[in-house]
Amino acid sequence: MTYKYNKVYLQDSSTVSGPYEKEGPLGSKFDKTYDNLYNGEKTWEKAEAKLLQESIDILLSKTNKTKNDIDLIISGDLLNQVTSSSYAVSKYDRPFLGVYSACASNVEGMIIASTMIDSGKIDNCIVSTSSHNMSSEKQFRNPTEYGAPKPDTATFTSTGGASCLLTNEKTDIRIESTTIGTVVDLGQNDPLNMGAVMAPAAADTIYKHLATLNRNVNYYDLILTGDLGTYGKQILIDYMISEYGIDIKNNYNDMGTMLYDLDKQKQVKAGGSGPVCSALVLYSQIIPMLKKKQIKRVLIVATGALFSPTFVYQHENINAISHAVSLEAI
Amino acid sequence: MTYKYNKVYLQDSSTVSGPYEKEGPLGSKFDKTYDNLYNGEKTWEKAEAKLLQESIDILLSKTNKTKNDIDLIISGDLLNQVTSSSYAVSKYDRPFLGVYSACASNVEGMIIASTMIDSGKIDNCIVSTSSHNMSSEKQFRNPTEYGAPKPDTATFTSTGGASCLLTNEKTDIRIESTTIGTVVDLGQNDPLNMGAVMAPAAADTIYKHLATLNRNVNYYDLILTGDLGTYGKQILIDYMISEYGIDIKNNYNDMGTMLYDLDKQKQVKAGGSGPVCSALVLYSQIIPMLKKKQIKRVLIVATGALFSPTFVYQHENINAISHAVSLEAI
Repeated sequence: MTYKYNKVYLQDSSTVSGPYEKEGPLGSKFDKTYDNLYNGEKTWEKAEAKLLQESIDILLSKTNKTKNDIDLIISGDLLNQVTSSSYAVSKYDRPFLGVYSACASNVEGMIIASTMIDSGKIDNCIVSTSSHNMSSEKQFRNPTEYGAPKPDTATFTSTGGASCLLTNEKTDIRIESTTIGTVVDLGQNDPLNMGAVMAPAAADTIYKHLATLNRNVNYYDLILTGDLGTYGKQILIDYMISEYGIDIKNNYNDMGTMLYDLDKQKQVKAGGSGPVCSALVLYSQIIPMLKKKQIKRVLIVATGALFSPTFVYQHENINAISHAVSLEAI
Repeated sequence: MTYKYNKVYLQDSSTVSGPYEKEGPLGSKFDKTYDNLYNGEKTWEKAEAKLLQESIDILLSKTNKTKNDIDLIISGDLLNQVTSSSYAVSKYDRPFLGVYSACASNVEGMIIASTMIDSGKIDNCIVSTSSHNMSSEKQFRNPTEYGAPKPDTATFTSTGGASCLLTNEKTDIRIESTTIGTVVDLGQNDPLNMGAVMAPAAADTIYKHLATLNRNVNYYDLILTGDLGTYGKQILIDYMISEYGIDIKNNYNDMGTMLYDLDKQKQVKAGGSGPVCSALVLYSQIIPMLKKKQIKRVLIVATGALFSPTFVYQHENINAISHAVSLEAI
């Protein structure tokens, strides 16, 4: 399901990261960073909610707005009951919609916000997300046994909060179109190889996006998935050729492989994950390139593994979904 | 945040319930019912996903549509990772958005769907939800100790799946307007008194809805909250008078008190809850009254307690949110 928009713009964005992301190649580009995973809070969950809340505070400051100027906040995260989002936004007293597409939640939020702005229902919307390495480990992989090695295909949940302000006021970046993805089940059930779980969902969404808009893969200066990691990235490249005859490798990268120095930061294995991973890369690295017109058209293809520990214990497959947003420098 | 719509209609709806709901006063009105909580599945989680999926199948059959006629499915439920929704929709291969507002998830879905239809982006959308008494008990209250009595203020998570088809094709019921609620924190932290947690959120949304549209409480033939239960219902009536000077009691009821026979079904305590509770009452009892023009205007005020067991263990309050949708017989 692909829509084009006439009057939706990205005004600004904000990023707050944890220590591992600070040490990565984009570390100096974040608005705020922390040297430890607690960032002044007593629990990982509260730490995560604070990262998200700080990203909203920074965004309000950067855009010179107060909370009362904001029509709507849409946010999603990995915590059960989307708690990081709902606790973080409780201090703003603004209308709120919680969303869940796992690591594709941020783009789901951007799609809903764009549709509401384009339809004239609202003037602007903050879209937020967060994830936290330890709150995710605790929730999804508890008990994590000491000494149990993870395979190289495992990814590393990123720590941070990130927000953007979408608006009907013209800026230098517009939301050109979006594609809502389909839940894909290709029989994968390994929670330590999410790249393989999500690659077919990304392929499905990229193909439908290009086909619906009758676009060649070279229409975009960059196609970026997030967050497949090094193994999932190669699976996607191969799968796009074998399944659709489309060669994406010339203008394609995966945001999960861009957040860390994979050669030095060995603990991240195949790369970053968590909904904030692609948001941190997009807002700190890609948006500035669009603003400087170094690139003109980017397709962001967020990928989410709809991983339920309960269902995996019950021998069910892990489903995946991918949502896409096309950003254009103007 | 309140919007009015010009061309959004409810075409039909569907309901599948578990055994407790079947025994209640609306039992004979559901499309399908089960006599036990497993409904042929091996786990409670799979049972819940099946209830949701069957409600979609029944809705497609009632509206004489195939899955390929559907532009979008929006669904939310209480299971972590919104798993009941994402597993249930995986068989339809349709664009999907997962949402989370706890027991207000169904109305959040109706709001997003209505905005997309009204803007012309899509022609129709299935909005679904589910909940399951035992999957909820297991997830939110495990370990549930034998012999530990619940207080009378506790509510009972309803079991079922429910769906509706919203469309731009004119029918006899239109989605007239909606209001997106705000996360409200009034210092409540008792997970066995959710009515008290949610009543202020419902009051806030009702007040903003009426004030924004400049409507008197008597504009509506019925105002229905869901799911405050008997205690929360009285709190809301009192709170609306004390806080806003608005007396709602003449045309007000709570859907959590309508699903069961509270005198006979003592195990439900203060009433039903879970996102399917208000959906089952709305689709089986209220929609038929609108179709027969026994009532003309209804305001559905779904209430969600954003209850995170993890945050409650950490001595945080339970936040709440409430979203409203106005339905009109035409």
